[in-house]
Amino acid sequence: MARYLLTISYIGSAFCGWQVQPNGYTVQRALCDACEKIFGKTVNITGCSRTDSGVNATEFCCHTDLSTDMPCEKIVKALNANLPDTVAVKDCKKVSDDFHARYDCKGKNYVYKIVNSAVKDPFSVNRALFVTKPLDVAAMQKAAAQFVGTHDFSAFCAAGSSVKDKVRTVTECSVEKSGNSVIISVTANGFLYNMVRIIAGTLIEVGKGEKDYRDILGIINSGNRENAGYTAPPYALYLNKVYY
Amino acid sequence: MARYLLTISYIGSAFCGWQVQPNGYTVQRALCDACEKIFGKTVNITGCSRTDSGVNATEFCCHTDLSTDMPCEKIVKALNANLPDTVAVKDCKKVSDDFHARYDCKGKNYVYKIVNSAVKDPFSVNRALFVTKPLDVAAMQKAAAQFVGTHDFSAFCAAGSSVKDKVRTVTECSVEKSGNSVIISVTANGFLYNMVRIIAGTLIEVGKGEKDYRDILGIINSGNRENAGYTAPPYALYLNKVYY
Repeated sequence: MARYLLTISYIGSAFCGWQVQPNGYTVQRALCDACEKIFGKTVNITGCSRTDSGVNATEFCCHTDLSTDMPCEKIVKALNANLPDTVAVKDCKKVSDDFHARYDCKGKNYVYKIVNSAVKDPFSVNRALFVTKPLDVAAMQKAAAQFVGTHDFSAFCAAGSSVKDKVRTVTECSVEKSGNSVIISVTANGFLYNMVRIIAGTLIEVGKGEKDYRDILGIINSGNRENAGYTAPPYALYLNKVYY
Repeated sequence: MARYLLTISYIGSAFCGWQVQPNGYTVQRALCDACEKIFGKTVNITGCSRTDSGVNATEFCCHTDLSTDMPCEKIVKALNANLPDTVAVKDCKKVSDDFHARYDCKGKNYVYKIVNSAVKDPFSVNRALFVTKPLDVAAMQKAAAQFVGTHDFSAFCAAGSSVKDKVRTVTECSVEKSGNSVIISVTANGFLYNMVRIIAGTLIEVGKGEKDYRDILGIINSGNRENAGYTAPPYALYLNKVYY
């Protein structure tokens, strides 16, 4: 028996999030099914985090314990042959027996993809958020900079979260424009429930002129969810990098 | 009554090609339905070409005659509001009454997208062709150059085509690699049935070492479909530019 770290990628719109649940097909379910087919028995797979239904991952990490002589590259091939096209195993490596995909995670980077255009691009449907009103990217950048640092992010956490300690350290929050594509990037040591989607929604409201970029720090310090922006939809959010 | 040129974009996998047909939802059908809703009567729409079922278009042109005072930008908005997300109208402009989307077309550019990687990328599924064997791009480039010129392309036309004159002028045929993405681009004054897909299939066989790049001109001159490569699948093909 050895522990393996799997790096995977998946299209969020094909799944009801990561975590196995009674109603709905999840990424964890797809991976467990593939492992069962290959190794002939049920395995447990532990993810680096839950991802909401609809959220994409260009990089998501998880660990599992396997009794096999199969070399890592063969495990990758066997899993991909038994997974739907909407999820792929990109890498597999042996790790120490006490490695934990969630507890050992030092940080994560998410990106939020916006297409800022009067006309929809069919190829970005369900993969980016369309915003027709021209966004003030400079204001969004000034707003984004205020998220960097160690703060209580209660104002940027979905109501009903049971997490007690809402202090997180955001190490990077940026907005980049290229053509009609606007990309929000947020890196932190941890994230609260819906945190990136509320940050994205708030930055979009700043970009539309509905919120003033000078108010961001005040909103953070208020600790009041009602002061922050809307929760931007999940299909434009990508877990992009997991740090160990 | 005035004639309008519409520039549209669509995801091929959502449609059974451009042309209205009894069995299957087509792009022309979607556009006709949207026009009927907006203008209250049936319209004819003429495309720059047929596209095969599954083929994508980042740019496709068509013309139609409308009796309306609506300015062009409003027509774009109204059509997009009445079209599925898989097709978008990017531009609309008035043209002369004798303009014809098909007969006035001077040339078209197609691109064929390949992901050359051992591991599938879920985000490219149904949008690019996965080739796991490393492709010899230099050989593909030498092969591609031989398509340029005026030739009888009978060897690169699907069997059963009723077209008599199979002479076409290819003005550009290139292969570019960037990361694990390999893009084939072909520009010509006109295309035979499946011509780009057979060129792509032949170039892929050269890239895999199954065909010699030095044989391409001989295959063209043979006029024999059996000497060319396979017909690469439609979902990785994009009509990219239409020239008038």
